[in-house]
Amino acid sequence: MRKIKKILVANRGEIALRVMRSAKEMGISTVAIHSEADRNALHVRFADEAVCVGGPKSSESYLRGDVIIQVCKDLGVDAIHPGYGFLSENAGFAKAVQEAGLIFIGPSPEAISLMGSKLAAKAAVAKYNIPMVPGTEEAITDVEAAKVIAQQVGFPILIKASAGGGGKGMRVVESVEVFEEQMQLAVSEATSAFGDGSVFIEKYIGSPRHIEIQVLGDTHGNIVHLFERECSIQRRHQKVIEEAPSAVLTPELRDEMGRNAVNVAKACDYVGAGTVEFLLDENMNFYFLEMNTRLQVEHPVTEQITGLDLVKEQIMIAEGNPLGFSQDELKIYGHALELRVYAEDPANNFLPDIGTLETYKRPQGLGVRVDDGFEQGMDIPIYYDPMIAKLVTFGKDRQEAIDKMLRAIAEYQITGIETTLPFGAFVLQHEAFVSGNFDTKFIERYFTPEDLAVKPNSDTEEIAAALAAMLLNKQKPASNGATVTTTEATSSWRRNRTR
Amino acid sequence: MRKIKKILVANRGEIALRVMRSAKEMGISTVAIHSEADRNALHVRFADEAVCVGGPKSSESYLRGDVIIQVCKDLGVDAIHPGYGFLSENAGFAKAVQEAGLIFIGPSPEAISLMGSKLAAKAAVAKYNIPMVPGTEEAITDVEAAKVIAQQVGFPILIKASAGGGGKGMRVVESVEVFEEQMQLAVSEATSAFGDGSVFIEKYIGSPRHIEIQVLGDTHGNIVHLFERECSIQRRHQKVIEEAPSAVLTPELRDEMGRNAVNVAKACDYVGAGTVEFLLDENMNFYFLEMNTRLQVEHPVTEQITGLDLVKEQIMIAEGNPLGFSQDELKIYGHALELRVYAEDPANNFLPDIGTLETYKRPQGLGVRVDDGFEQGMDIPIYYDPMIAKLVTFGKDRQEAIDKMLRAIAEYQITGIETTLPFGAFVLQHEAFVSGNFDTKFIERYFTPEDLAVKPNSDTEEIAAALAAMLLNKQKPASNGATVTTTEATSSWRRNRTR
Repeated sequence: MRKIKKILVANRGEIALRVMRSAKEMGISTVAIHSEADRNALHVRFADEAVCVGGPKSSESYLRGDVIIQVCKDLGVDAIHPGYGFLSENAGFAKAVQEAGLIFIGPSPEAISLMGSKLAAKAAVAKYNIPMVPGTEEAITDVEAAKVIAQQVGFPILIKASAGGGGKGMRVVESVEVFEEQMQLAVSEATSAFGDGSVFIEKYIGSPRHIEIQVLGDTHGNIVHLFERECSIQRRHQKVIEEAPSAVLTPELRDEMGRNAVNVAKACDYVGAGTVEFLLDENMNFYFLEMNTRLQVEHPVTEQITGLDLVKEQIMIAEGNPLGFSQDELKIYGHALELRVYAEDPANNFLPDIGTLETYKRPQGLGVRVDDGFEQGMDIPIYYDPMIAKLVTFGKDRQEAIDKMLRAIAEYQITGIETTLPFGAFVLQHEAFVSGNFDTKFIERYFTPEDLAVKPNSDTEEIAAALAAMLLNKQKPASNGATVTTTEATSSWRRNRTR
Repeated sequence: MRKIKKILVANRGEIALRVMRSAKEMGISTVAIHSEADRNALHVRFADEAVCVGGPKSSESYLRGDVIIQVCKDLGVDAIHPGYGFLSENAGFAKAVQEAGLIFIGPSPEAISLMGSKLAAKAAVAKYNIPMVPGTEEAITDVEAAKVIAQQVGFPILIKASAGGGGKGMRVVESVEVFEEQMQLAVSEATSAFGDGSVFIEKYIGSPRHIEIQVLGDTHGNIVHLFERECSIQRRHQKVIEEAPSAVLTPELRDEMGRNAVNVAKACDYVGAGTVEFLLDENMNFYFLEMNTRLQVEHPVTEQITGLDLVKEQIMIAEGNPLGFSQDELKIYGHALELRVYAEDPANNFLPDIGTLETYKRPQGLGVRVDDGFEQGMDIPIYYDPMIAKLVTFGKDRQEAIDKMLRAIAEYQITGIETTLPFGAFVLQHEAFVSGNFDTKFIERYFTPEDLAVKPNSDTEEIAAALAAMLLNKQKPASNGATVTTTEATSSWRRNRTR
């Protein structure tokens, strides 16, 4: 047991702010680091102390582990929270932190390292009989051997770079005729991208759902799961909308996936908050995909349905406290949704749309949570991920969470840049999403940029009328001398881009 | 069953916005009314339609029931939500609304009328044996008869005007010697203030807690309670901090008070959301005080611990739907606190401090909800209640809700006016509040304006250092060429009044 008194958050933006809020509530002092581009960022203003660690590029600042550890020594910091991205899954950094006598708020360097290699991870979890997509058990570079395996597994198959991630170095092969050519391309692509040409081959699941299980492990050997998150709404293999619980899991399947996730965590003696990702096919068979050894972007939906603060749990675990609850005590309360609000233009292939937040007014009220790192008038820096905010809603059931998300999207006022808000409204009103009958192919199956050209629900006429009234600045006298104004609805649909 | 399609909210500020948010989530159109002073208010901008109903004084606008009903007819409104205050407990208005063929979202005019008279209310609930403070059962004006009763009850006693409320027309009498004089004064005071000189006499409970029970009744005869709210932290007999659940109720006492509250509601065939107020004495005896026949200011704490949206429940009940749950299905999840953020100077006897919100930045994040009706740059009108916002926090237990409230208060940035935020921080750190051992005398017992002159916790030195650093604009080079800035903490304690 070692009480943490001062935390440095080795990150920026919403996650830095989010971590510091929990630290502050625990009475822990906070140190922000920032690049030259982030001098005026909210996470810098919130922190008790802030240190500029280098230039605007991540490689000059947020990835400079050596500088960050030195800052900790200079300021008497006890512990580093890495957030997500940047150094959060860098085993070498985690090790250097420990060697400097500091607490790394996360799993051991060994667990990070083990789960960072897809093949090593699969080998490690094998003894627990975790269901896996049929395919190679080891990395492979030999084309002929690979072809034999591909034929055993059955086409279509997927070739994945052993060292890859986020969709990079992946190829779907539909038939044996094109296999050799595709395999050679994959190996050479993997070699040039990751310096490691080994790949593995697995059955291609065409229309999977992406379901992940949140786990928490303490230093006393206790591991629990906090149920699932459904993350199937993705663009470019990256999540945009997440929810908890999933609309399709039965309690039995939830228990079974949860047990498997706990076993994956056991296989690497996992400590802290982690996420075990699964694919779920059309027949409700699930397959282990990988483990993310950090806090996920989408962790808030789990917080809302469990009532737990995952960052506080991480910190208490890092201090050496045992978990304060058993699996049986954990329950799901209601339903939560998260929409990632990116500075991207969904009508233009989700290309980043960096600029100034000329108007920035957050939605408020019951069942709405906004985690962000910006305020009105700020620029979105070009150097980092273009996520502006995470808009989270929660209600007593899935429909209420959807209703709240639509209300919150309409209430959110952002001008100066395009965002994923209108895309969110499109998805949340789409029959496939509302019914729960969707998978990771949602966008390619249902979405075209034209869907955002007009408001996609039945209020089109009403909105048109409101717009007309606004243009005319219409004010007509009512009876009793009362004046009726048809007001401008605070709708993001207006797309009143002002730049 | 009559589906509501368009609601007019006969109110302003945070409650108008809060009601309209729920209506919007239910797909119901919204009509705002406003006075000439509120043309640019947020509730006006949020609504689908907005109507100016008169001058800045409430009597010229928000209390003009006739104008409001005419607006409903002109705009095809189905239902009126009265919010709290203004016309919300005006039985004549409720009746006029019904007679105009509109739905009044609230109880019947008869229930409002019955519960609006303390003595009639007591008589009505008598058959359910609701515990009441010992005293007169009927209004009295005769001094000699009153004296006999006072001696039976035992001094100290309380003389209350039958038609009074909010602390007006109340007198504590310590002994029989001064009774006659005080009684005569009370009768003449009541006559001039309310046009009704009748009073009643009851046992004076010196240090009570104010505990109230939220009830919901539908049009099918079902009535449930949604547990209690503790509202003992008051200034000038008005609530400032509320919480749910109470820190002191046992499950048995909660059940018993809940059953009694349901019986009070049954006694007046209550429909909709209502609140039964009790006093709880030092020996944990409770006494019926009165019933508020409307949504309360402090309803959000109940929403947070039950997962229910009380405004949606009100609307569904008004449509004729039966309640969607039984008493047994209702559970308490976690703990919630509300701090009313008033434009008042707590260091100057809580006098209103009206002005412009020069800076106005709300706290965000997990477990924080802000219900308000203002944004940066707006003026607080002098015509109405000076409440700016309701800051609500919730966590897995009482300590977490307190930790979050302190963090949220520190994060809330308001300049241009004084507010009750520093008073909130004082209370939430006071040993009596933290331990749960407090009552309605908290302020007179513990609070002096000097308590706000310095930060009342142990961080004083740290704050002083931060201030010094800020004044010097201190920037010292750290090792690695990193620059350390001791940043300005976003603390309301700064009291950086800019006007």
